Amino acid sequence: MNREYDVIILGGGVAGIYAAKALIKGGKTIALIERDCLGGVALRWGALPVKRVLDYFKENSGDVDKLLDGWEDDLVELSRMIEKNISFLGADVYYGEGEFIDSHNVIVGEKVLKGEYIIIATGTEPASIDGITIDGEMIITHKEAITLKNIPKSIIILGGNVEGIEFAFLYRELGIEVVLVEKEDKLLLGYDDDLVEPIEKKLLEKGVKIIKGRAANKAYIEEGKVKVVLEDGSVINGEKTLVTFFRKPNFPKGIEKLNIGLDKDKVLVDKNFNTKEDNIFAIGDINGIIGLGNVAINQGLQVAEYILSKRDISIKYEYLPRAVFTLPEIAGIGKQEEELKGVKYKVGYCNLKETWRGWARGIEEGFIKVIVDERKNILGIWMVGNLVSEYIGLLSPLFNRNLTIDDIKRNLIIHPTLMEGILEAVLNIQ
Amino acid sequence: MNREYDVIILGGGVAGIYAAKALIKGGKTIALIERDCLGGVALRWGALPVKRVLDYFKENSGDVDKLLDGWEDDLVELSRMIEKNISFLGADVYYGEGEFIDSHNVIVGEKVLKGEYIIIATGTEPASIDGITIDGEMIITHKEAITLKNIPKSIIILGGNVEGIEFAFLYRELGIEVVLVEKEDKLLLGYDDDLVEPIEKKLLEKGVKIIKGRAANKAYIEEGKVKVVLEDGSVINGEKTLVTFFRKPNFPKGIEKLNIGLDKDKVLVDKNFNTKEDNIFAIGDINGIIGLGNVAINQGLQVAEYILSKRDISIKYEYLPRAVFTLPEIAGIGKQEEELKGVKYKVGYCNLKETWRGWARGIEEGFIKVIVDERKNILGIWMVGNLVSEYIGLLSPLFNRNLTIDDIKRNLIIHPTLMEGILEAVLNIQ
Repeated sequence: MNREYDVIILGGGVAGIYAAKALIKGGKTIALIERDCLGGVALRWGALPVKRVLDYFKENSGDVDKLLDGWEDDLVELSRMIEKNISFLGADVYYGEGEFIDSHNVIVGEKVLKGEYIIIATGTEPASIDGITIDGEMIITHKEAITLKNIPKSIIILGGNVEGIEFAFLYRELGIEVVLVEKEDKLLLGYDDDLVEPIEKKLLEKGVKIIKGRAANKAYIEEGKVKVVLEDGSVINGEKTLVTFFRKPNFPKGIEKLNIGLDKDKVLVDKNFNTKEDNIFAIGDINGIIGLGNVAINQGLQVAEYILSKRDISIKYEYLPRAVFTLPEIAGIGKQEEELKGVKYKVGYCNLKETWRGWARGIEEGFIKVIVDERKNILGIWMVGNLVSEYIGLLSPLFNRNLTIDDIKRNLIIHPTLMEGILEAVLNIQ
Repeated sequence: MNREYDVIILGGGVAGIYAAKALIKGGKTIALIERDCLGGVALRWGALPVKRVLDYFKENSGDVDKLLDGWEDDLVELSRMIEKNISFLGADVYYGEGEFIDSHNVIVGEKVLKGEYIIIATGTEPASIDGITIDGEMIITHKEAITLKNIPKSIIILGGNVEGIEFAFLYRELGIEVVLVEKEDKLLLGYDDDLVEPIEKKLLEKGVKIIKGRAANKAYIEEGKVKVVLEDGSVINGEKTLVTFFRKPNFPKGIEKLNIGLDKDKVLVDKNFNTKEDNIFAIGDINGIIGLGNVAINQGLQVAEYILSKRDISIKYEYLPRAVFTLPEIAGIGKQEEELKGVKYKVGYCNLKETWRGWARGIEEGFIKVIVDERKNILGIWMVGNLVSEYIGLLSPLFNRNLTIDDIKRNLIIHPTLMEGILEAVLNIQ
């Protein structure tokens, strides 16, 4: 059976879903091919369910049994939400592994689909290093970890990055012994020390054991435990080991038949996410630009606009809002101090408890940090605190229009709110 | 005893406090004259302590005894915070009623203070109508209401405005019978019906009795109760009555000796908050521009910059972020539909529970509403939900630079957050 579509989308993660929705709104017919489960890593296998658990602990002070009792239902409900979100749109969803026949035809199961355009949005999956082989049972990835099945008594988490640290909080809140191993001398590389410090302190307070500055080189199973060998030869034990250090691209089958432009990590694209094949685009993690959910959503929307209008895309990722969904969270946008070596800048702080609303709410934790250059331009706004990921809101379009100290002084923030701390931080700059 | 200062500030509310801080940072000597208690209505006698109580109920599900036990200490702590906030600055604070001798000299107690500049920031106070006389015991204002002393079993609140509604929630949460009387046919005049509806529903659910469309004309005390006579002749009873309907200016004594420019409600000012007397300025509620805490703070900072630099002030209050601190809150910025009669516009909605983070957090309540014109400009963003006042953040400078649908589609919001609902609302516009 053959069918023709305006656009075939390979991969039903957020990049593919948002592209599909926008293209359908623009009148295009869509085939969406998914080999596993709609939602991808952002919605189904990683970020979102992790936040569900962390948010649960924020608001239910640790009733673990109730969480675990409901968890399977929660994941079913999540799948249903994602299906609903897609299905009402009128996209044809094909489950199976899509394989390129040529630049316009894809085979999935027994069906051949022809597309005027094809969007590759197949994402990435966890990868490991030579001496540490993922078996999905004892040496696992986020996909197994988030099912919360066969919860061990102890776990070793390899990688002190965002994913590793979010899971360290999550498993520790479940009452499990957690050892977090980071090969660099600091956690959360790419985040300034003053932002990381309260998170690291909280991890230690909760009883997470942190090993920094030593890489994990090897892992093997012995006596029913995973033994992880660190670079100094020391060996640590855990019932399971969660590997978070890197990811590899999910290249679609048959891609080698095309003249598409690849390197080993990614599909190469131009500014319109167009590959060397005129009618084929690559969006989301697979194009290797930035592996974040909001970037994938954005690229889905943008590529749809490009296909519909043929107007060039001009996206600046210079001001990328980012967050770490720990307890407390880190969130912010713009430069960090460690990116500003050699540049003259000043920093202003305001503790959330020193804002008027902070007093009203009895808030103890968290702060706002504003980084400015010598000409009063705001270079970065960073926050630590409960739910600060929400407070970044639409700062991205504002940063793209150049934000200055005077903007903040001249404009109005609702009183009394914690966000007045942005003004206070600016006023505190010496 | 005579003393000379660069600037004398009459009134230690937020307008005066923020002006004082900025002027001291700019090297000026300051006398701050306060007749009562630093902090004014925003911090000491109204908005902030009201939020403290409402935030308490949000996070402590109604342990009223604990709240009341600690309330006096809380108010002392608040006064201490405000004092600390001011005193480290090096302003001389004079307690007493300041009286103008002439345009440069003010007498307070036995001291005559001379100022190169004088800033009037004396604010407003609650007022009533002829038939309803405030006695401070049974017919009271927010000042008495917020002390939480001699809490009655029942209260009539006159005025379904922001203040009236916040107190209706507050007193109802204390377990008191509340009747809310609003002379117009709707609560929260100036807010769109779809924003007000969830608040009104919540008030009714909590058991507040709401009377709309009938003005209160008269009140008298009989048999230990306040009897309020409505315009249709019906009479309602309460142990106390809280009057919120309007406010009158606190003109400083001796102001009539100056050629300052007054009308009955306010001190007249130009765009630099300058009165007809060259060296005298008026900021905050007393100038009648907009009676909101954030506007007062802003005018304090702006007038200080003007005095320091003499550069004209250019503030646009077209895009004024506003909030109602009920449970849930209303917050937003820009136009509302009722201001857009005759203009073509479209509206997009997203329920917070339909965002991915809304699912993660188990959020049931609230929505985001985006209003756009025919040329895709964003006219307003409004929200209902828990703590949405925080989510408005720095939207004010962004609105001042013209925000369009494309900005929101092209830019990045952290995933997963409730604030992705702004993007979803835009995508939902038909």
